[in-house]
Amino acid sequence: MRLERLAALAQPTERKVLLLVLDGLGGLPMTPGGPTELEAARTPNLDELARGGTCGLHEPVAAGITPGSGPGHLALFGYDPLVYETGRGVLEGLGIEFPLTPSDIAIRANFCTVDEAGLVTDRRAGRIASEDAAPLAERLDRIELDGAACFVRHVKEHRFLLVIRPDAPTAADVGDTDPGRPGEAPLAPEAHDTASAPAAALMAAWLDRAREILAGEPAANMALLRGASVRPEWPRFDDVFGMTATAIAAYPMYRGVATLIGMDAVAVPDGATALLPEYRRRFADYEFSFLHFKAPDKAGEDGDFDRKVAVIEEVDAVVPRLMEIGPDVVIVTGDHSTPALMRSHSWHPVPFLIHGGPARADAVASFGETACAAGVHGRRRGCDLMPLATARAGRFAKFGA
Amino acid sequence: MRLERLAALAQPTERKVLLLVLDGLGGLPMTPGGPTELEAARTPNLDELARGGTCGLHEPVAAGITPGSGPGHLALFGYDPLVYETGRGVLEGLGIEFPLTPSDIAIRANFCTVDEAGLVTDRRAGRIASEDAAPLAERLDRIELDGAACFVRHVKEHRFLLVIRPDAPTAADVGDTDPGRPGEAPLAPEAHDTASAPAAALMAAWLDRAREILAGEPAANMALLRGASVRPEWPRFDDVFGMTATAIAAYPMYRGVATLIGMDAVAVPDGATALLPEYRRRFADYEFSFLHFKAPDKAGEDGDFDRKVAVIEEVDAVVPRLMEIGPDVVIVTGDHSTPALMRSHSWHPVPFLIHGGPARADAVASFGETACAAGVHGRRRGCDLMPLATARAGRFAKFGA
Repeated sequence: MRLERLAALAQPTERKVLLLVLDGLGGLPMTPGGPTELEAARTPNLDELARGGTCGLHEPVAAGITPGSGPGHLALFGYDPLVYETGRGVLEGLGIEFPLTPSDIAIRANFCTVDEAGLVTDRRAGRIASEDAAPLAERLDRIELDGAACFVRHVKEHRFLLVIRPDAPTAADVGDTDPGRPGEAPLAPEAHDTASAPAAALMAAWLDRAREILAGEPAANMALLRGASVRPEWPRFDDVFGMTATAIAAYPMYRGVATLIGMDAVAVPDGATALLPEYRRRFADYEFSFLHFKAPDKAGEDGDFDRKVAVIEEVDAVVPRLMEIGPDVVIVTGDHSTPALMRSHSWHPVPFLIHGGPARADAVASFGETACAAGVHGRRRGCDLMPLATARAGRFAKFGA
Repeated sequence: MRLERLAALAQPTERKVLLLVLDGLGGLPMTPGGPTELEAARTPNLDELARGGTCGLHEPVAAGITPGSGPGHLALFGYDPLVYETGRGVLEGLGIEFPLTPSDIAIRANFCTVDEAGLVTDRRAGRIASEDAAPLAERLDRIELDGAACFVRHVKEHRFLLVIRPDAPTAADVGDTDPGRPGEAPLAPEAHDTASAPAAALMAAWLDRAREILAGEPAANMALLRGASVRPEWPRFDDVFGMTATAIAAYPMYRGVATLIGMDAVAVPDGATALLPEYRRRFADYEFSFLHFKAPDKAGEDGDFDRKVAVIEEVDAVVPRLMEIGPDVVIVTGDHSTPALMRSHSWHPVPFLIHGGPARADAVASFGETACAAGVHGRRRGCDLMPLATARAGRFAKFGA
């Protein structure tokens, strides 16, 4: 359902909604017939929420599609990631919390090496170490252009963020300069429409200056630009769901995505217990809170089944104190699956529970993938969870007479 | 699936389809773990249909969205209510069965009070009694305009229907005049596009005349206009599903929605048994029949769990006689949930059964929310039911060679 239509139905109540995200929650058995990480974990408190609430499985993007962190979270925030797509450059900016203005052109950039003929020899500059790349990025940050301010921020290894802030706003549908394989010259930045021609010209001018500055650097003597994009103007979360909203997260990427749709974000130390004091502090001032817990995804990416079990149990232990703070409707889920078996994000549907508000019972007695598959919600799209929770908080008026 | 594509597949057979709607059928347990209204009801005949047929749950509009009666019924008729949206004015016209022509501008209007400066003091004129409002509406019905005929029909209390029938057809995307709160002047009717300018001018002229006529009336000295709309031109139901269609309903709203898509509607007295003779009479002449039973919704809105149980049992008792009349494929469901617990429509999925025609078995042995959740249909959109029933009547040809 279009977000503008949801916004037209939003109505105020006193009831507050909590979205608790265990990043990469969904898992797989390590051996056929075995438990997933969540099923192996001892989670008496999440099980109790599942018993008292309603369960299901959600698919953040679409069948067979493995979500990145941005699309996964947008889905949980109610934004269909197939409709609300963010450019890679903007996501890179969000990931390091660069304060993007509405006219900034955000570009995902990386160091590379080229030979004397200008042909690319290594597209990632041998994955140059961060301590070697950072000083190069600082030098690029000093580039000045006619008609725009420029900012370079080192991200990690060969990756950096380039932001071009033009004096006059411009579209930024510009092709990547990465030729995709070594032995070819970098592509010129090509505008895909006439409105993006100024952006392409600024990118070309910046590349000329970067080439000069990096000339002779043995580790990285050129840069490639990808995913040029301008921060999208989407409906604000507080307008769509009629709730003032805060995001509490240790990692900048998640605060960034939340900020993109107008949530008020705050940084906390890593770990499940660190979420508690900030949530308690902010509870009175916000009607919706998003709490992000990163550890299950990291453990999954590391292929560490047991650590993923342990960090899920760590969250379970704080659940009673979260509930004491007083949310009326609670969603617990993940933004995607990260099975330790696969050491990566995956497309598998993610278990979820919604607790609080008027609902039918289901027979789900524990929080896990197999149990949730039999829940009353069945399989749903990820972007359906927020409307369901909002309805249960009494915050949507009737559609049509 | 687009209705035009369904229409291209429609093919004739002898088999007849019955849609029996128990308005507001879906419910909730009054206490956790308890039965819903439908589950508490003794329904041996509906249970037998469920056993011999196939079951599921449907969502009339979208996740978390509470359907009004119009969208709920359009979904059951196969029309996606997110695509086929009716203006509020047209719905008000349908609700009192005003015979709208294709060029009529239908407007949901209500009496209000204004002070000497013209500022609204009560947006609903103190919910003026119907017997006081009706004579005022009759006086407004005598308004004559240059370029249009006008009709006013009192609906209830402060509400009335205004129909402007322009000499030349015009679009009617015109803003509401209700300022939304007391202490402000009514807004002027504002055309949202140039094609709607004539409609806005006619509405302004009508309001000038209404102000003169109501001047000095203590109970209601002004009117507010909302939801100006023209009857939409949608594919006809008989074209889409290839069946001549009749609607049998006690309440004008439901006959009105059916008429909007070309069904032949007939009024009957209220109650389940009153549907029987009219269905029997019309059975030979129509290939599709929609029977509407209002009582479960009313009982739900009144918060009367026991009465909702009783009226569901009342329908159950007439089911054998309905089946004797001879429909080949039968859908039994509701247009939305109206849990007595909530005393209102709600977003919860609605149980349905489809009986007759080739189908796989499911294990559902009784007609109820929890049982239907395990049915072979799973969860479906409301607008999927008609295509499923039509297919079971053998009335769709193959899609593609």
